[in-house]
Amino acid sequence: MSSNRLVYLPLGGAGEIGMNCYVYGYGPAGKERFIIVDLGVTFPDMDTTPGVDLILPDISWLADKLDRVEAIFITHAHEDHIGALGHLWPKLKKPIYARRFTATLGRLKFEEHGLPVDMIRTVAARPETVEAGPFKVQFVPVSHSIPESAALVIDTPAGRVVHTGDFKLDHAPGVGEPWDDAHFTAVAAERPVKALMCDSTNVFSLHAGRSEASIKEPIRELVSKASGMVVATTFASNVARLKTLAEAARAADRSVCLLGRAMRRMVAAAQESGVLTNFPPTVSPEDALELPRQNLMLLVTGSQGERRAASAQLARGKYLGLEVKAGDLFLFSSKTIPGNEREVLRIVNALSEKDVTVQDDAGGLYHVSGHANRPDLEHVHRLLLPDMLIPMHGEHRHLREHARIGREAGIISSIVTNGTMVDLTGEAPVVVDRIETGRVYLDGTSLVGAMDGVIRDRIRMALNGHVMVTVILDEENDTLGDAWVEISGLAETGRTGALAEVLETDLNEFLAAAPAKLLRDDDKLDEAMRRIVRQVAMEEIGKKPEVTVVVSRLMSE
Amino acid sequence: MSSNRLVYLPLGGAGEIGMNCYVYGYGPAGKERFIIVDLGVTFPDMDTTPGVDLILPDISWLADKLDRVEAIFITHAHEDHIGALGHLWPKLKKPIYARRFTATLGRLKFEEHGLPVDMIRTVAARPETVEAGPFKVQFVPVSHSIPESAALVIDTPAGRVVHTGDFKLDHAPGVGEPWDDAHFTAVAAERPVKALMCDSTNVFSLHAGRSEASIKEPIRELVSKASGMVVATTFASNVARLKTLAEAARAADRSVCLLGRAMRRMVAAAQESGVLTNFPPTVSPEDALELPRQNLMLLVTGSQGERRAASAQLARGKYLGLEVKAGDLFLFSSKTIPGNEREVLRIVNALSEKDVTVQDDAGGLYHVSGHANRPDLEHVHRLLLPDMLIPMHGEHRHLREHARIGREAGIISSIVTNGTMVDLTGEAPVVVDRIETGRVYLDGTSLVGAMDGVIRDRIRMALNGHVMVTVILDEENDTLGDAWVEISGLAETGRTGALAEVLETDLNEFLAAAPAKLLRDDDKLDEAMRRIVRQVAMEEIGKKPEVTVVVSRLMSE
Repeated sequence: MSSNRLVYLPLGGAGEIGMNCYVYGYGPAGKERFIIVDLGVTFPDMDTTPGVDLILPDISWLADKLDRVEAIFITHAHEDHIGALGHLWPKLKKPIYARRFTATLGRLKFEEHGLPVDMIRTVAARPETVEAGPFKVQFVPVSHSIPESAALVIDTPAGRVVHTGDFKLDHAPGVGEPWDDAHFTAVAAERPVKALMCDSTNVFSLHAGRSEASIKEPIRELVSKASGMVVATTFASNVARLKTLAEAARAADRSVCLLGRAMRRMVAAAQESGVLTNFPPTVSPEDALELPRQNLMLLVTGSQGERRAASAQLARGKYLGLEVKAGDLFLFSSKTIPGNEREVLRIVNALSEKDVTVQDDAGGLYHVSGHANRPDLEHVHRLLLPDMLIPMHGEHRHLREHARIGREAGIISSIVTNGTMVDLTGEAPVVVDRIETGRVYLDGTSLVGAMDGVIRDRIRMALNGHVMVTVILDEENDTLGDAWVEISGLAETGRTGALAEVLETDLNEFLAAAPAKLLRDDDKLDEAMRRIVRQVAMEEIGKKPEVTVVVSRLMSE
Repeated sequence: MSSNRLVYLPLGGAGEIGMNCYVYGYGPAGKERFIIVDLGVTFPDMDTTPGVDLILPDISWLADKLDRVEAIFITHAHEDHIGALGHLWPKLKKPIYARRFTATLGRLKFEEHGLPVDMIRTVAARPETVEAGPFKVQFVPVSHSIPESAALVIDTPAGRVVHTGDFKLDHAPGVGEPWDDAHFTAVAAERPVKALMCDSTNVFSLHAGRSEASIKEPIRELVSKASGMVVATTFASNVARLKTLAEAARAADRSVCLLGRAMRRMVAAAQESGVLTNFPPTVSPEDALELPRQNLMLLVTGSQGERRAASAQLARGKYLGLEVKAGDLFLFSSKTIPGNEREVLRIVNALSEKDVTVQDDAGGLYHVSGHANRPDLEHVHRLLLPDMLIPMHGEHRHLREHARIGREAGIISSIVTNGTMVDLTGEAPVVVDRIETGRVYLDGTSLVGAMDGVIRDRIRMALNGHVMVTVILDEENDTLGDAWVEISGLAETGRTGALAEVLETDLNEFLAAAPAKLLRDDDKLDEAMRRIVRQVAMEEIGKKPEVTVVVSRLMSE
């Protein structure tokens, strides 16, 4: 018997929706060869990551094992699967495999980062096979809310794994390949499926998912009835939806104008890679200005309320000269992702003030999800009949529920969250390691560890305000001049007077009376002054601010 | 003809859900006598108001008109109607009128603030009438998600106004008075209703609202089937719900333990004021620890995911020794308010990790709203047949939709948002003034204006980080020692080295070469150094931080 083992280690995406990054290994324990599936990002928020630009998976566990990493596979081109490629590839420098549309978008990212685009290799659908060390990997087309999504069939000497990526069962997706049971029946018939790693996003949706085709007529009808300009927003990457919307525009004698960089870029990439054909011709924003409003549809970015995107800018005022007006229709052909409600409602209310009619997804009339619902997941379990099910791409509640329905169907099902390495070699997954894992923040151009304290300090300043104290001492530890206080983000006036002045008075009193021993000791002096500032601020304004003390010691030269 | 006019001016609640505060005036223009209806708060969030404790309406417009303010009326005891009382009353010092339960809670607030509780006067339901200058005001009982809510009938020489407060049409609310059409038919029959100011919260809910009674059986069944401990959370002020939950516990042979200060306080106030009777006896947390889990229900605060409330603490670990375990049931008998999704889901996922079964409101099975849905609003319009409808308590989208359905029914309907004063004397509302209005932040113990820049500075520090520069100059404008840099909330290492050191080097080079004229000018020196810091930080870490420069000038004494 060989001592080789097949292991699975999620570094992102298992315990969260977003930031997908999964590692598979095969070989003797501690000497496995690895492949990485997906390198996604997640998005920051003001609550936990103010000022951060992007959140990336922490791949530092791989840092001393790079010679054992064979390749990177990307299932599809959503940012939570491909978004970290440009940022993390320089730490990996391994070939990347993806289908054509995904590879096209990956190369755009590589160009922006000045990375070698030839490292991204286009792979055709199964039966084409990529050999990567002990792994043989095939891309099986699945339907999703972006073209050319793929499930991966990952063959190893220890058995076959199916990694679904994100998918839905859409038999008429409009753009891209329809879901086809036959692909998966064939996969399972060819070789039994040892383990199924399966998308869990919609496990709480109890009805079978609906096709993109089901919303074509409602959207067409809505647009045909509109009298003013129509503005529609959805994820730019949802190319099928863009086509659905553009066709509704054409049917209503409306020209389409794409607004927002992502929107133009995605349509171009989809046309270039051949997945999007017969898209109605578009007009530029300048030309759109010349058209009667009833002959125009704007397709705009910012369905999640992003402040800088076209939707938010149109809601606030003009965008490239274009403006919404009373009587226009604004369609959210999208669902608000939990956590984005405030931003989306800000737009809705701004549009309401302009007397624009806002149409949301109306419970599904104008939007369908890109993920498989519970009955669809159960259908896929039955198609593949895996020995074991490991739910992925979900918060803990999704993983747990997905594992529960797997077990109900008699499948060995385990919850495996980020940082947990399981051995899949035997009959059931066995936890063999817990990896220190987490998140890395792209902050400006720096990569900052989530635990470094940088963001914690920012949050503290935001919650508590900031006081800066400077004091100058000479060689005899006598103060030169008075302590000086600058406050930032705090009420200027306290109970007994101007906050900065009250603080200075109290600090100067303290300094005048402080023993030489204390004045000689930078740390103790710093700590004592900090304590005074926090205590006095508490009395004056009821807050304990963050404090920075700078003690300057002047020496004769 | 008299030149008296009847005016209406919302200072909060019209253009938002929360922070209700409405002013009515009657008299000659500029000499009106005023009453205030409700003094509510709204809650801060990290996005726009980090570190703020509460958000209050800006009543400064009234500051120079205090001699014309007659009284304050509170419709009910929800924080968004009564929460600012303790903070703003000292600026008003007028008698407050409310029904008994509301008055009881108001007095608790007054006690905490050391204010004269006898200024809060208990008023019985109509026909009892409060005379306040030219106003005669009656409280008409309505059903809502807190006991003893009231609509106000406000009589003036110019006509009768009905101000609904928050309400729903519940004929079996469990605790508190049922909705009674007859009250309102009588109001309209007695004197025609000139203007109806009407709750708009649920105008987008198209079905008739459901009664508290409708969820009793589902909750009872859910609790009866639970095998471990049951934890249920809802708003503490929803006393009827607490009773529904506690009765389900009693039916399942479970003792009830109240967790969270608001929970205990609300039950006590409801019992004291007589609105809550036959509430099952409760056990203390210490006694609860001794009970078998299947004989216990915890009623806990924190249904909106508030970090310090009992729900969140239980999800993270122990609370007063009590702990949730695998097999327990956690019921959200509540709806997540838009914007609170992330916090609530954080709790749900933490509970999932503990293998606790989480039950949400399941689309209404375990929760009903406290607000009137669209058909209910239309019913009230028909009962009162007002000359004009002015929607209140809603974001702009709610007000607009409510006005639209009013107009559809043939009622003159106007959108009147915060700060807009309308004259109601004629046949339709006429805008007569726009008031500078806004929000005031309670920050620690200070009141800070929303426009003061204090919170803006905090947000900027959170987004951009902070750099503090100190430099010491002598009388000849020569630098004494080097410039010193402290960074906070920024990556420590930039492209070419430690950020603080790189900044210091560049600043010292600049100072060494700076002309005396520049060194003499504090403002220009500050500005020049600030620019260098921002530019160098941009090159090093891709961010432009907030900068504080402290130039100390040492003079010989």
